[in-house]
Amino acid sequence: MQIFLHTVRATCKSGARYGIKYLRFLDQISRNLAVSSRLYSETPQWGSKKKHRKVKLHFQLQSMADPKIEEVLAPLRSSVKEQGDLVRKLKSDGAPDFDVKKAVAELKARKKLLEDKELSLIPSASFDRAKMEDLLKRRFFLDQSFAIYGGITGQYDFGPMGCALKSNFLSVWRSFFVLEEQMLEVDCSILTPEPVLKASGHVDRFADLMIKDVKTGECFRLDHFIKAHLEKVSLDKKTDESLRAECQDIIIKLDGMSKQELAAVVSRFNMKSPITGNDLTEPIEFNLMFATQIGPSGLIKGFLRPETAQGIFVNFKRLLEFNSGKLPFAAAQIGNAFRNEISPRSGLIRVREFTMAEIEHFCDPNDKNHPKFESVKHTKMHLYSACSQMDGKSAEYMEIGEAVKTGLVDNETLGYFMARIQQFLLKVGIDPAKLRFRQHMGNEMAHYACDCWDAECLTSYGWIECVGCADRSAYDLTQHTKATGVRLIAEKKLAEPKVVDVVEAFPNKGVLGKAFKKEAKAVLDALAALNKNEIAVLEGKISKNEDYDLVLHDGASIKITKDMVSIKRYQKTLHVEEITPSVVEPSFGVGRVMYSLFEHNFRMREGDEQRTYLSLPPAVSPLKCSVLPLSGNTEFTPFIKKLSQDLTAFDISHRVDDSSGSIGRRYARTDEIAIPFGITIDFDSLKTPHTATLRERDSMDQVRINLDELPTVVKDLSLCKITWAEVAQKYPKFEQQENAKA
Amino acid sequence: MQIFLHTVRATCKSGARYGIKYLRFLDQISRNLAVSSRLYSETPQWGSKKKHRKVKLHFQLQSMADPKIEEVLAPLRSSVKEQGDLVRKLKSDGAPDFDVKKAVAELKARKKLLEDKELSLIPSASFDRAKMEDLLKRRFFLDQSFAIYGGITGQYDFGPMGCALKSNFLSVWRSFFVLEEQMLEVDCSILTPEPVLKASGHVDRFADLMIKDVKTGECFRLDHFIKAHLEKVSLDKKTDESLRAECQDIIIKLDGMSKQELAAVVSRFNMKSPITGNDLTEPIEFNLMFATQIGPSGLIKGFLRPETAQGIFVNFKRLLEFNSGKLPFAAAQIGNAFRNEISPRSGLIRVREFTMAEIEHFCDPNDKNHPKFESVKHTKMHLYSACSQMDGKSAEYMEIGEAVKTGLVDNETLGYFMARIQQFLLKVGIDPAKLRFRQHMGNEMAHYACDCWDAECLTSYGWIECVGCADRSAYDLTQHTKATGVRLIAEKKLAEPKVVDVVEAFPNKGVLGKAFKKEAKAVLDALAALNKNEIAVLEGKISKNEDYDLVLHDGASIKITKDMVSIKRYQKTLHVEEITPSVVEPSFGVGRVMYSLFEHNFRMREGDEQRTYLSLPPAVSPLKCSVLPLSGNTEFTPFIKKLSQDLTAFDISHRVDDSSGSIGRRYARTDEIAIPFGITIDFDSLKTPHTATLRERDSMDQVRINLDELPTVVKDLSLCKITWAEVAQKYPKFEQQENAKA
Repeated sequence: MQIFLHTVRATCKSGARYGIKYLRFLDQISRNLAVSSRLYSETPQWGSKKKHRKVKLHFQLQSMADPKIEEVLAPLRSSVKEQGDLVRKLKSDGAPDFDVKKAVAELKARKKLLEDKELSLIPSASFDRAKMEDLLKRRFFLDQSFAIYGGITGQYDFGPMGCALKSNFLSVWRSFFVLEEQMLEVDCSILTPEPVLKASGHVDRFADLMIKDVKTGECFRLDHFIKAHLEKVSLDKKTDESLRAECQDIIIKLDGMSKQELAAVVSRFNMKSPITGNDLTEPIEFNLMFATQIGPSGLIKGFLRPETAQGIFVNFKRLLEFNSGKLPFAAAQIGNAFRNEISPRSGLIRVREFTMAEIEHFCDPNDKNHPKFESVKHTKMHLYSACSQMDGKSAEYMEIGEAVKTGLVDNETLGYFMARIQQFLLKVGIDPAKLRFRQHMGNEMAHYACDCWDAECLTSYGWIECVGCADRSAYDLTQHTKATGVRLIAEKKLAEPKVVDVVEAFPNKGVLGKAFKKEAKAVLDALAALNKNEIAVLEGKISKNEDYDLVLHDGASIKITKDMVSIKRYQKTLHVEEITPSVVEPSFGVGRVMYSLFEHNFRMREGDEQRTYLSLPPAVSPLKCSVLPLSGNTEFTPFIKKLSQDLTAFDISHRVDDSSGSIGRRYARTDEIAIPFGITIDFDSLKTPHTATLRERDSMDQVRINLDELPTVVKDLSLCKITWAEVAQKYPKFEQQENAKA
Repeated sequence: MQIFLHTVRATCKSGARYGIKYLRFLDQISRNLAVSSRLYSETPQWGSKKKHRKVKLHFQLQSMADPKIEEVLAPLRSSVKEQGDLVRKLKSDGAPDFDVKKAVAELKARKKLLEDKELSLIPSASFDRAKMEDLLKRRFFLDQSFAIYGGITGQYDFGPMGCALKSNFLSVWRSFFVLEEQMLEVDCSILTPEPVLKASGHVDRFADLMIKDVKTGECFRLDHFIKAHLEKVSLDKKTDESLRAECQDIIIKLDGMSKQELAAVVSRFNMKSPITGNDLTEPIEFNLMFATQIGPSGLIKGFLRPETAQGIFVNFKRLLEFNSGKLPFAAAQIGNAFRNEISPRSGLIRVREFTMAEIEHFCDPNDKNHPKFESVKHTKMHLYSACSQMDGKSAEYMEIGEAVKTGLVDNETLGYFMARIQQFLLKVGIDPAKLRFRQHMGNEMAHYACDCWDAECLTSYGWIECVGCADRSAYDLTQHTKATGVRLIAEKKLAEPKVVDVVEAFPNKGVLGKAFKKEAKAVLDALAALNKNEIAVLEGKISKNEDYDLVLHDGASIKITKDMVSIKRYQKTLHVEEITPSVVEPSFGVGRVMYSLFEHNFRMREGDEQRTYLSLPPAVSPLKCSVLPLSGNTEFTPFIKKLSQDLTAFDISHRVDDSSGSIGRRYARTDEIAIPFGITIDFDSLKTPHTATLRERDSMDQVRINLDELPTVVKDLSLCKITWAEVAQKYPKFEQQENAKA
């Protein structure tokens, strides 16, 4: 059980594995919609100079229930359900693992077809990804890292606007989670020595399969490679129908195939490198962690952490102590993690270096109620349950209280965090119509006892996992305890004291010290760690004057003789019991949420497709306010300077744009970088009482306000203490038409 | 010139090299004061379980001018001056480089003796480092990373209190620099491909010398190793006087010795591994960057960035564009950097993973005035000029305006940032009496044209460099231009248009295209890059029907024949000139400043040495407020709950301590984690109007305030909008004695 859980943690955290399904599925959508797909190259994708073909994807969830659409979807839904039922039956019949896996792969493929169709059918406004990417690059929200050196795939630099957005995003996150919930935030090392990641399972299992050109050494991610090859074969006019069907069948089942099965496919189709035509190696497991050496000796192997969570787990003892030994409590960490993806793509969605914001909530495994659950229970959520997924149904809206009550969501703590995650995502600007929580299906966490839901955002890449929310039980703490011998447990007060029988191998320290010298400490520890049964064996041996083989923590074995220990039995009254806490883990992929924010807030002005902007909420907007002189008239200068100083004194980030160009053109520029409010100093500003216009980005409405009131008004607007509607009501409307096209 | 500058950048940034001198000198102090020194082990130092011997260091700068002390220091001062004068003379005589180096090494050694004596003579309160470290570890400000796995030297995790302090520190930094100065903040990749760091000089020169045990492979940092060995020899009673003198002489000169000279010392004293007695290798250059592979092929070599600055330089073009092509502007970055130190020590001062906050201010090399210099010119600074250092004088207080006017500080921009750095450091809690700005001496930047000042904080490790402030000229931009061919320059409008003669090798594209095919682009670029003289040579060759060897950007050479180009001459009117901007770089070592903050704010209550606390300013204190019920009385509970909610609504970080223990004991606990304000709910709180006591940490004074006013008062205190004195005057004093010892 733990091994599987292990695999899940090692491969799925923040969506490395499950995200893929969606990306694959998207790939298909993209292809249907004539998006260029570059599977092979290591060259830049997102933001590369190559022109993007227009991607027009259609989605709008509200219309999901359109009866005409449902008619088209009905056969696909029942095809999913049919297969879902088969999987359930196989499982309940205890069918061989292999058969279940095959059936699950087919189920996933059918789900994919359904979701694909669903997305393609829903009428909605079009979205132009190339246009958005152009904006993001042109206004330096982000760009490929080391672009002047040709760039590195899967690495991005955030420019001034992206960095400010990210920093505002993280500060809202900190105040929403860490401050509000009084979490213990930590800041741990990125460089991690091997034993830590060995224990967590990453050294052994955090890998993808790849295949190499035997001559050039060029690498291809195996599943992507096979899929691309088979698709090419399928599309070839010379391919006959039966071969085409075989290709399609393999593509559908790829996800569930083992290394051997994949190798067989490569050899069955005699696949060569698509670049050189050279032969390929056998499939190789490639560990996705970046390896390095710590210190000069080359003896300490280390990795860049693949997730921030382990830093919290290894500090559990100190954190519990800091919390005065009391459960529950949550620790949080914001920081970078690294994954050496074989062939990163999809822009910010799949990168080699990324920021995570993770929470580990430690609680009593037998009491997962949450004291603040009451406060969120009426939160309406868009839940896509495992059951609905197997039945070919759509996601449903439901109050989280109801979901926990009916057992759909396993416990209050998990439900509480799901609701809080949703509140947070909406606050920073995620479109509620493009957000759902998808439950992991049984087959995604087979023997895994607990529950897991991913917050997914709908983008032009499809539904992408942005925040994971999992009940990870006691797995990680148990693993680190095993590896270090340091018991990562908490004490829980018993309802009433309990008397227990104790049997103990009491050491004769003098004899042990002489016999084992420096090792004596390790022997004492090992003796203390013996359980009842082991002590019985020990007692049996020494009573017969035989030696007992005691295994030390480092795996070495030593002989215990009769004179070294005596067996003691007594009773003890216990007031506390020791428990290994369960962990509920909300884990945010910051780059993925940011990417979704870009897509969800990208807009075009009605009637002017060229005038694009980002309607980010003020809380996360890179800058809160622009300050514009109407023209280059020098009389404006002192007003601009004074206003900028006043705004700085109020901690309001702003940008002065005194360049030439009409006021409309300059507004358009500030709209592009999502500045929500704009102040213009015009000729009326020179008269007393000095006033200026204040403009709101989305509505383009303007009011006229006294200069000395402005900083407070903008501050309150930025902090959402007042709404624009209130401002518009209070102050006189400024009617002059802004020259949008100028 | 560039090569030396190069070396300076590569080895000194943020004090890797210059910091060392102070650490070494400290080492000496420490030894004098009987501090245990562990040069050899790779095991934990700071925070290790081994008990620290008490370090009582004495310093207080105010008393520097005590005439008795000056009497003792006089001979040391004149010994420094004598040597300083010799260095000056050698330089002005143009003596051989080798002689200058020797003299400089001796000068440094004499400076060291002087500073050592100075620090040891000044009477002051004692500081107990072990006690402070105990506090920091016990209350989980920080701890060694992966402590349950035995820990890794040179890596630290920040616990909840350290993390909150760091995050507050960075947010003050952001608002003080980025917001106030409207800097362009970026967030760039940590993983850096080799060519970038090759260009910056780090691949070739960012190295320390080490020596290895030939059998075990154990590594020792060469300078530390030799010093420790020679000191041991010196202390040996069997050592005769002449040998002892020789050892001392070498120790003094170590800093200036070459690899060969050091190797000769190792062999002259027949040094062996101090651990095994085994032979040692020859000295080896060990590059301090962590290496890794990007991508699965093993073909893209990368490093973890050793500084954040390069991320800004490679993005210069986009940043300039973002700033509408105008100079000056500053970019900033906060992020982690990594150095694989051979044997890290001195706690947070020398670590393998650290956070930097760097600013790169780009300006016209011919106009380094700063528009806001007026606003800081009266800032009094504690300046330790290169000249004073050579003359054996102390640091002096001077207004920065004066320092720039007299040319002591090279230009206004540099001076402006020095003043701002000081303002910032004082704001976050650095003791002004323990802060100085030390100028790099001529020998520290020999052929380096510009100026460099380090903000140094006095700690029990001596003066440590916390912030570097350097005028780095055009070095980095020039290097990246050379490496990529992308011209990192700015355009400057000419006062009046200039007519220039242009000579151009005009390409015949048809012929070139046929001849060079894919390479034609590179050939065109190389032709365009030819200067006047080269074109003259080219013209000479082709006029004689000879081939011209054209060197392409990648180093390859091709033949240009007569039919490929024609030489054109014409006149052009220029309105702008191209300049490579100069860079002024303030670079903050966040961990070093934080460590200094800990030392400068560590206090003991008068008359109770056990009661220690941290008097950090509210702006950076991990938490702003504590909330304490006087006792476990359940009537207090609703008040505590309501107050906590109100504080959260005001974004005030706080901690409720409802544990048992007297109120005095709980106050002491909150003092330890630097909480500046404490609210206690007592029996009077139950009466209407509901009130509570508010206590200030440093004075331990208390007032009584209405509950509904409290959040605003605490918020204003935290933001320094009001002072405690004002609060104490406005509200009635609460007189009840707090039971400190309870």
